[in-house]
Amino acid sequence: MSTEKFEDRKARIVLQQCLSARLQVQPKSDTEEAQFVEIGRGLIVYICFLKGSTSDTVSKMVKAALNTRLSANDEGKLVSILELPGDVLIVPQATLGGTLKGKLMQYHKNIDKEEGKKLYDEFVQSCNDIVKQNNPNVSVQSGTYGNRQVFRTDTNGPYTHMIEF
Amino acid sequence: MSTEKFEDRKARIVLQQCLSARLQVQPKSDTEEAQFVEIGRGLIVYICFLKGSTSDTVSKMVKAALNTRLSANDEGKLVSILELPGDVLIVPQATLGGTLKGKLMQYHKNIDKEEGKKLYDEFVQSCNDIVKQNNPNVSVQSGTYGNRQVFRTDTNGPYTHMIEF
Repeated sequence: MSTEKFEDRKARIVLQQCLSARLQVQPKSDTEEAQFVEIGRGLIVYICFLKGSTSDTVSKMVKAALNTRLSANDEGKLVSILELPGDVLIVPQATLGGTLKGKLMQYHKNIDKEEGKKLYDEFVQSCNDIVKQNNPNVSVQSGTYGNRQVFRTDTNGPYTHMIEF
Repeated sequence: MSTEKFEDRKARIVLQQCLSARLQVQPKSDTEEAQFVEIGRGLIVYICFLKGSTSDTVSKMVKAALNTRLSANDEGKLVSILELPGDVLIVPQATLGGTLKGKLMQYHKNIDKEEGKKLYDEFVQSCNDIVKQNNPNVSVQSGTYGNRQVFRTDTNGPYTHMIEF
């Protein structure tokens, strides 16, 4: 992979295992309580699209997130989240596209917000289809694109991984 | 930065804001309960050293982690964790050095365990010195190198950032 360069990157995901996680999908308003989604044992997928990302990038990201052997099963063997099987929580995280410049992070490599929203929806839909087809009893949850991701998690070891596309 | 290549990377950190976090530093044994460290509002720093990392890399990492303006203060302005001021939790996370190969992550770019432990200790010591000199009332906590990082966190928006060195 010696010819790959930083500027060729089109997307980035960070993956963490969890025992449970809860994410706010609607902040509290004057009239309504905040709304949350929750998952049990499974995989948290933070995702960020950079300029140049396409539906093809989304397919590769979904494949990597769902098929990579990152989850320790009860026997301690590494299996994919589909094989576990476990829940999936998708967290839009535009900050992941930042690059450090002095004391500030800059986000000019990030994709336009509208395009990002479209690709994010594709990612969520595709994950949901594949995970549910594999096992209808597991849960796929996702955060609201563009919102602040108010969030808590409990893990038995996050095994944090980062994959670029 | 068009000449930078993937193989030049020497280390990677992932940064997340938190309202609180708790990390196991000693697993439960036959004779003793598990031991944990905790922080309040602050910054979680997951760190991973790759081959070629040196004390010079550690200095750059500490500088970036402590001085980059990633924390929203009470007025919503972005300030560094030193300026906030907030607590720091350092989590060794060798999995962050993985690269995807088929359905498996490979870790052959990671530094030797002994060398990594030495640089990790330098990172923790340096963060502790700088943070405490800046404000003796904040807390710097760190995980046990090589252990499973049993962990929970609560955030008001993790603002996940990744920085490479």
